[in-house]
This record gives sequence, structure tokens and C-alpha cells, in this order.
Amino acid sequence: MSVYTKKLKIDSQAETQILDISEQVNEVVRQSGLSDGIVSVHAYRSTCAIGTVEYEPGLIQDLHELFEKLVPRQAYYHHEETWHDGNGFSHVRSSLLGTSQSFNLIDGELYVYPWQQIILVDFAPQGDAKELSVVIVGE
Amino acid sequence: MSVYTKKLKIDSQAETQILDISEQVNEVVRQSGLSDGIVSVHAYRSTCAIGTVEYEPGLIQDLHELFEKLVPRQAYYHHEETWHDGNGFSHVRSSLLGTSQSFNLIDGELYVYPWQQIILVDFAPQGDAKELSVVIVGE
Amino acid sequence: MSVYTKKLKIDSQAETQILDISEQVNEVVRQSGLSDGIVSVHAYRSTCAIGTVEYEPGLIQDLHELFEKLVPRQAYYHHEETWHDGNGFSHVRSSLLGTSQSFNLIDGELYVYPWQQIILVDFAPQGDAKELSVVIVGE
Repeated sequence: MSVYTKKLKIDSQAETQILDISEQVNEVVRQSGLSDGIVSVHAYRSTCAIGTVEYEPGLIQDLHELFEKLVPRQAYYHHEETWHDGNGFSHVRSSLLGTSQSFNLIDGELYVYPWQQIILVDFAPQGDAKELSVVIVGE
Repeated sequence: MSVYTKKLKIDSQAETQILDISEQVNEVVRQSGLSDGIVSVHAYRSTCAIGTVEYEPGLIQDLHELFEKLVPRQAYYHHEETWHDGNGFSHVRSSLLGTSQSFNLIDGELYVYPWQQIILVDFAPQGDAKELSVVIVGE
Repeated sequence: MSVYTKKLKIDSQAETQILDISEQVNEVVRQSGLSDGIVSVHAYRSTCAIGTVEYEPGLIQDLHELFEKLVPRQAYYHHEETWHDGNGFSHVRSSLLGTSQSFNLIDGELYVYPWQQIILVDFAPQGDAKELSVVIVGE
């Protein structure tokens, strides 16, 4: 039994702020040399979030529209009274989706459906530092 | 310290697609022989999700109505442009609720309230394969 | 490698039911003596939830307003037919936000942004017992 830890920063010029980070997480799994355990993925910033989706352009747009409907960018947020930085919607969306998620490592593979990808969502208005950490505990 | 892994498929003819899987997770805990650790439960399919609720008919109906309100089945989803399979709402609901959750194993028991059950929600229109995995790391 | 478990009850007279529990979780980390691993935090009650937010008064109000919008307190909930205890909205909000979350412990520190706090949200009408558990697996 051992623990493997990794801090990551995702470089991205992508217009969309919903990033498929499956390959980065899988690379950490390979580096760890572990075959069975729990893989915890956590978004460092409080305007980002971790989740899963079938990563294809239609659903990416659907997710953007979902968050615009539930937590509209142009609505008034009391966060503005504290920082005046125009990112109240980003924080609220992050809290709603959740900033971390755990995955199951079994027989050397992350046991996720081929059409289920791990995503880091950056809700910040102009994009934020896409920092995350991965910790694997197992054998 | 050790790790115990299990892949499961839930057989269900239930009309509702919100299934109480507490007993299945507890059975894996018993099989593992572990008494303290973290229990990670992950839904394999990208149209399913894992969560918790007090499992009684009223709340099950309330959850169905919540997801119909937030992510209506009959709305238009861009996912349709990719696959034409009519399950855009299923994917979006899965992303919103989340496809995995971890629980705490203490002194041989999952430390959850007697009125808090673990659920697998299958959002697929005609029902999907209810596959999940459980990984326990502990001693 | 070892596992450290802790059951906690938060005493609070705070008017708000969104509580910053970062210090309590960090105290458990210190007690464990562990420096690297996964920290699983779980809310015991099915009307409570665990999440993260930048903990400042504006965002706390924003979160309250989000949940009032998505799951209004005064709406009708079928849960009422079962228990008549007026807390249907509390249960549904708990299911939506999620009752647990995992964090990453790296080099002796919970790797969270200085402006990202861990919160326990008590959605119960008059406040409920704020019980939670923390399990750390690592070394």
C-alpha cells in the first residue's frame, strides 16, 4: 500500500472552459505504478470544478447552457459587494458542481465508461489558472 | 492496510430509476473484511449518477420532479446533433448530480444516518445497464 | 500507510446554516499525524451537505439564494405525505449539493486555495445536529 500525490497545471488555449483532463489523470495513474485504489481529483481554485461528462461538442454546449440557466452570469451576486471582481457566478457554479471527485482504479485501469470523461470546468470570466491535484491511495 | 475492489451490476425491474443500493454497498464492505477506511462508489455509465437521500416514496418523487424542473426531458439538447439518441437530458442530469461519492467506514460500519441511503440514479430514457464499482481502502 | 477516523459534532449558534468547517477538518489532519493521502468528509444527516466556497458574507448569501431558487422552501414536496415534518426542501437540497467530498493531503497540507473553504450546510428548517465524520487514508 502506498500513496502517490501530484500537483498539476493545465495549459489550455481552448475557447471552451470545460476541459477534458482524462489523459492527464491517466498519466498520473501510470506514474504512480499503482493498479488498485482510489483516485481523488481536486480543483485548486474556488472558481473551478471537477466532474464527468461524455465529452463531445453538443454536451459541452448543453452544460454551458445549463449553468447559464441555473446561475446566470448577468444576475446580481452579493459577492460583488465584497470584491467587485465580477465573478460571483463563477464561485456559485463551482459550489454547485463541486470541486472534487473520486474515481476507482481497478486492475490498472480507471473504471470509467469509454464515453465518460473527467472534466475540469473553469467558470472564471476570463479564465483562471487551471490548477488541480491528484492523490492516489492503493497498491 | 489493503484495498478491496468490486464491480457490480444491479438487476432491477423497478419502475423508478432511483435505486437504493445501500445493501449492495454494505455487502461489499462485509466481503472486504475491512473495518476502517474510505469507500468510493462510482457509476460506470455517463447517464447514471450516485448520491444519497432518505429513500421513501415522497422524496423519490421530489427528486424526479427536481431534475425534470432543472433539466427538462423535452427541452432541446445539442447532444442530439451528435448521436440522435434522445438522451441529452440524461447526460446533463448525470453531470449535475455527479457520478461518484465517497463514504466513511468507521468501526466496521458505514457511518451514515439511518435515514440516509445511497442511491444509483439511472437517468437513461428506457433504463441503462446499472453498472458501478466500489473500492475500499483501509484496514 | 494507515487510516485515521474521527466523528465530529459542530456546535454553532450562527444564524447562517452554512458553516466554515475548514479548521475542524485541519485539526483532524493534525491529529492524524499523516502528511499525504485522501481526506474524506461526510455529513451524517440527510438534511445536511458538504461542499466548498470562498467563505465571505456575499457568497454565503448567494448560496442561500441559489438554493431558494432551485429548491424553494415553500414549494410542495411529496416528502410531506410521509412525515409531515416540513423539511422536504432540506432533503432535496442535500441530495443536490451532495453529502460528502474528498480532499487531497499533500506534504502535510490540505491542498486547497486560500480562498476555498470547506463548508457544512445544514438545510434543516430549525437547524439539525451538525454531525460529520472525517476519514484520512495515507502515510
